[in-house]
Amino acid sequence: MTTKLMLTGGTIDKNYNEFNGELNFIETHMPELLAIGRSRADITVQQLMMKDSLDMTNQDRDIIVKACKNARADKIVLIHGTDTMVETAIKLGQEKIDKTIVLVGAMIPYVFKHSDAAFNIGFALAAAQMKSTGVYIAMNGTLFDYDKVIKNRKLAEFQSI
Amino acid sequence: MTTKLMLTGGTIDKNYNEFNGELNFIETHMPELLAIGRSRADITVQQLMMKDSLDMTNQDRDIIVKACKNARADKIVLIHGTDTMVETAIKLGQEKIDKTIVLVGAMIPYVFKHSDAAFNIGFALAAAQMKSTGVYIAMNGTLFDYDKVIKNRKLAEFQSI
Amino acid sequence: MTTKLMLTGGTIDKNYNEFNGELNFIETHMPELLAIGRSRADITVQQLMMKDSLDMTNQDRDIIVKACKNARADKIVLIHGTDTMVETAIKLGQEKIDKTIVLVGAMIPYVFKHSDAAFNIGFALAAAQMKSTGVYIAMNGTLFDYDKVIKNRKLAEFQSI
Amino acid sequence: MTTKLMLTGGTIDKNYNEFNGELNFIETHMPELLAIGRSRADITVQQLMMKDSLDMTNQDRDIIVKACKNARADKIVLIHGTDTMVETAIKLGQEKIDKTIVLVGAMIPYVFKHSDAAFNIGFALAAAQMKSTGVYIAMNGTLFDYDKVIKNRKLAEFQSI
Repeated sequence: MTTKLMLTGGTIDKNYNEFNGELNFIETHMPELLAIGRSRADITVQQLMMKDSLDMTNQDRDIIVKACKNARADKIVLIHGTDTMVETAIKLGQEKIDKTIVLVGAMIPYVFKHSDAAFNIGFALAAAQMKSTGVYIAMNGTLFDYDKVIKNRKLAEFQSI
Repeated sequence: MTTKLMLTGGTIDKNYNEFNGELNFIETHMPELLAIGRSRADITVQQLMMKDSLDMTNQDRDIIVKACKNARADKIVLIHGTDTMVETAIKLGQEKIDKTIVLVGAMIPYVFKHSDAAFNIGFALAAAQMKSTGVYIAMNGTLFDYDKVIKNRKLAEFQSI
Repeated sequence: MTTKLMLTGGTIDKNYNEFNGELNFIETHMPELLAIGRSRADITVQQLMMKDSLDMTNQDRDIIVKACKNARADKIVLIHGTDTMVETAIKLGQEKIDKTIVLVGAMIPYVFKHSDAAFNIGFALAAAQMKSTGVYIAMNGTLFDYDKVIKNRKLAEFQSI
Repeated sequence: MTTKLMLTGGTIDKNYNEFNGELNFIETHMPELLAIGRSRADITVQQLMMKDSLDMTNQDRDIIVKACKNARADKIVLIHGTDTMVETAIKLGQEKIDKTIVLVGAMIPYVFKHSDAAFNIGFALAAAQMKSTGVYIAMNGTLFDYDKVIKNRKLAEFQSI
């Protein structure tokens, strides 16, 4: 059983840019994270884009939908920024794709000492392997159905609705 | 849905003892790990013992079986040393307890920079939430049935049999 | 021999703000850094301001000069952003204060896994203890005289001139 | 001005051996530590041995003395286990070598999240650059003369005598 890990950017993969003091995308940390997690699961990584999810356009979401439809794997973990994760999940849910798609990201980028990235990716990979067809969001140690979740921005956490 | 996190010790929870240069048990890191993982899941923590799994006795395993049977939660994540994790899993499996029990640990203690602890615990918590009744081992980004897994000591990883 | 650790902000003390995805000042990490470094030196911490050094005004530099002059300790480590560290060092140097003043910061904030903060602060504290009167910059494992150093922005490192 | 970084092992350079759960020497972390500290100082690294300092013999100390005498650099940082650091320092001090020799190590190995290694190495490198001829111990944010220091084992820290 292959799991496809699709990268779109998001907080989880941001780096510190020492030249301007900002957080930018340079290179994904997911292979390093999987190595530290000592994963021996059958995972292939595909980079769709590297974007802050606030900058994602309808065209970007079309690319994501198409990639999910075209993927040979029927287990997909989609790395995504948290700000518009719910929006992308809803779009994917409406497509009724016959695969298990788990959206995941992090509140704190992987490069920080106190990042939630490793915990979240471990959680999301398990969810992708174990859940049947559907679209889910894996955040805060919880798996949400795509149409029953919001990001509470004041608490910086995901909640059931 | 409450998940019970039962602690028995194991590599994952070892600390560096600066007085003798050895790795000992001082205090569990699981609450810190859950906080960094930003878990909002309903998890209660119960410490059964703090032991290297090579030092676990039949009596210890009886304590574990009894605790699993008595737990009000029907989702249990059992933190356990990797060396005899399979042995404890088999014992639990034979008891036919009507709960989901996921054994998990780490190859590298939580206190090391390159620990697999956070990834593994995230994975195990998802498995406990999502799998039906049974006994499982969650290691190396993979969920194994309790009676179809060995620890390959030469590779320091778990494998299907 | 007391060393005064004066805080002004700078990259070293920035935090990740999970609510807006930016790097902000919340609280200094210097006490934590000194604890991890197991420092038993006589160090008192004083916070003058918490600013990105690009936002420092002449008035801010007057506050720093005054604090250095008024300090009872004659060994001062001044935590400062790197972008205008040289400018502040020159101003302090021109004041001919009869103390040892070492400016230090970090290219990567303390909260990142690959931060240079602990190395730099260790280096700067040693320099403050060991050098005679004067104003110095401690960066890149090197102690520079205040009037013989530039920050090479293309390389993101300090160099002798 | 070249600084010679001489490696002898010690707690600072120990690794976690995932095959037996013990702390062993595999490979030095000093080049990685210097890279993270963004050192641009002229430092050459020489490995003399990789030993727990409790296992050091008189012959090992003869090797260290000889290496210090033969080094072309007159600034030496000697990475050493803390348990017999004072003993080696005294032996070096009695040799009246016309160089600056700073012994340093760590109470917690570099590979742990809460290691004092980076702080200590930064401190020791500064001390080697700045102090005149003599033998010193750099631990706990303090530089000790070789003949006025003990390791207080109960507190796991170095103290003046």
